[in-house]
Amino acid sequence: MPSDPLPGLEPGLEPGYDVPALPGMSLAEIETPALLLDLDLAEANIALMAARAAAAGVALRPHAKSHRSAEIARMQIEAGAAGVCCQKVAEAEAMIRGGVPDVLLTNDLVDPRKMARAARLARTARITAIADDLSMIPAWSAAARAEGVELPMLVEIDAGSAACGAEPGAPAAEIAKAIDAAPGLRFAGMQAYCGVAQHIRSPAERRAKIEAAAERVRLTLDALERAGLDCPWITGGGTGSWEFEAAGPWTEVQCGSYVFMDADYQRDAAAPGQALGEFANALILLTTVMSKARPGVAMCDAGLKVQSMESGPPRILEPDPGNSGLEVLGCADEHARVADPNDLLRLGDRLRMTPGHCDPTVNLHDWLVGVRGDTVERLIRVSARGRSW
Amino acid sequence: MPSDPLPGLEPGLEPGYDVPALPGMSLAEIETPALLLDLDLAEANIALMAARAAAAGVALRPHAKSHRSAEIARMQIEAGAAGVCCQKVAEAEAMIRGGVPDVLLTNDLVDPRKMARAARLARTARITAIADDLSMIPAWSAAARAEGVELPMLVEIDAGSAACGAEPGAPAAEIAKAIDAAPGLRFAGMQAYCGVAQHIRSPAERRAKIEAAAERVRLTLDALERAGLDCPWITGGGTGSWEFEAAGPWTEVQCGSYVFMDADYQRDAAAPGQALGEFANALILLTTVMSKARPGVAMCDAGLKVQSMESGPPRILEPDPGNSGLEVLGCADEHARVADPNDLLRLGDRLRMTPGHCDPTVNLHDWLVGVRGDTVERLIRVSARGRSW
Repeated sequence: MPSDPLPGLEPGLEPGYDVPALPGMSLAEIETPALLLDLDLAEANIALMAARAAAAGVALRPHAKSHRSAEIARMQIEAGAAGVCCQKVAEAEAMIRGGVPDVLLTNDLVDPRKMARAARLARTARITAIADDLSMIPAWSAAARAEGVELPMLVEIDAGSAACGAEPGAPAAEIAKAIDAAPGLRFAGMQAYCGVAQHIRSPAERRAKIEAAAERVRLTLDALERAGLDCPWITGGGTGSWEFEAAGPWTEVQCGSYVFMDADYQRDAAAPGQALGEFANALILLTTVMSKARPGVAMCDAGLKVQSMESGPPRILEPDPGNSGLEVLGCADEHARVADPNDLLRLGDRLRMTPGHCDPTVNLHDWLVGVRGDTVERLIRVSARGRSW
Repeated sequence: MPSDPLPGLEPGLEPGYDVPALPGMSLAEIETPALLLDLDLAEANIALMAARAAAAGVALRPHAKSHRSAEIARMQIEAGAAGVCCQKVAEAEAMIRGGVPDVLLTNDLVDPRKMARAARLARTARITAIADDLSMIPAWSAAARAEGVELPMLVEIDAGSAACGAEPGAPAAEIAKAIDAAPGLRFAGMQAYCGVAQHIRSPAERRAKIEAAAERVRLTLDALERAGLDCPWITGGGTGSWEFEAAGPWTEVQCGSYVFMDADYQRDAAAPGQALGEFANALILLTTVMSKARPGVAMCDAGLKVQSMESGPPRILEPDPGNSGLEVLGCADEHARVADPNDLLRLGDRLRMTPGHCDPTVNLHDWLVGVRGDTVERLIRVSARGRSW
């Protein structure tokens, strides 16, 4: 029995059943667990990153894998982003339906059906694909021709993660030449993303890792030049490292987490003087003490189904753990176990936490509860949530 | 532009956009990553557990937190289950809308709004709640009276996990007495669930842990008898331990994972002669090699957004890791890194894996792809996915 939608809620949603909170609620009225987005802080992060990228002379193409939300992507584009990055075709489909005009698929695809879906998207939006293996090129060419589109493509090099990406230099240039020669494809540049650098705790080591990646990029630029190929677009970088990529030769940075930040990035940002330290923790997990049956410990209603623990525990923001010794010891499926050495917590008390890792935490939620000050302003749909195919 | 639904697909869903596969597809046609449910194996697990519980003389109330799917709950009830357990009110709401007539809320609730929602459900279904603290009882009583229902309630004791649950014996009996005396509530029994026992690797130690829990139950039964309270319902037990609870004094077991099984339970089941070893791995993560840029390693398209790694890595089923040395080394958000010491894998090769931990893995997916033999029979909606509030 759907009711009329409330102002600020999408039509077709049943208040009280389909969403974890309603527009107009106060913070105290939100049932827990809930993942909140502080809109003032998120908007400030979006504006700040746009300004920093512009000042550094690089384009900003935020990675939508962090938020998986067309609404947040549109906020980023309105603030000046060139478009977004996506990891999955299904993610790109949701972004484009949600009004995003320009998507870079940053993941290697090998299934011709996925290539066909990507090429189909290129009829209504700008889609760019990548490849790290020569054998992918004929299939991409066939997909583009079947849809009657010209697909820009980047060669992906291994920027130091030893995961995906072709060997820098001549092997990468061979792939670029194959793209250039393939009907339906247009060689457009290079992706060099160093994932392992993002969470190196020492800023100096993080910088050194990106300087090593820059050498790999330059080696590849030389090989491309010898092959007679222009490389106008060099994309990579994340929230942890972008200031080093922005120093060149990259032309574009792919930061995603900066919108939210998380406890893991907060630990990275502990060293002063980093670009990382400028961004605010806009993502807040709201949870309630639902069992306090023994001294020294409290059980909260926020387990592995509402937060990812794989990059370490969340950081408790409130009550202030500085004085109280509060600390998340671990999570079961539905519960977080909180050390409460001074037995400060009572049944029904609410805790606010910064999640350990933003991307997989956001992907657990269909909705972010967008709050401004003490009030729910709107529900933000994580429109590509679960869309990994 | 919604198309007509295909046979075996819910109305209103757009084939090719809303779901990761379509009824009638062959296994080879399913795009990856996809979480498959082998229907023959799942149905056999459901029938076997029902038979084993009946033979042991205990009721079976499967835990819906494992599958979060009203469809699977209905399959369990048709096979003889007494109802289901839920951890969250929003989960219970989805189960009852999906046709489940009887839900035990196995989690402690402290928010009066959640109690009101639970009491509202009791107008159309049988809902039982639990409490581990005296202070919860007046609020539950008020919620039941406001909805004009009588709520059966259990006292929850700490069965050895030192997480939730009242102290066994007199403290638990005090809570039972308060339930008994409260208008709108009816004291119905006891919950004693020992979560920490489920994954003790040694069957002997697992048995010992449940025997210790049984002592706590008996201590509480004595206290209840002294208080003049009947305790006809004693519920607890999980897939790892249920055979020990079924020996008594429990009257009901709450197994959930047995429908799916997972790599963690498979490691537990390595010791012979256990009930655990009878259940088949019905849950399969299908993934594709999407980068093979260097020797010794392959990157697959199945990261932390499609599988939980917090109970250890998945187990590769196919290609057979016995001969090839294949092993999942770790996951990033979108990728699994697979050791491939003999460079057996090629781009586009498909791997089948048993996920490490079923509950949080299933909760990442909106749909299970129900396969029978080599064909997709139907899509199974994870109808309470993400519903943690």
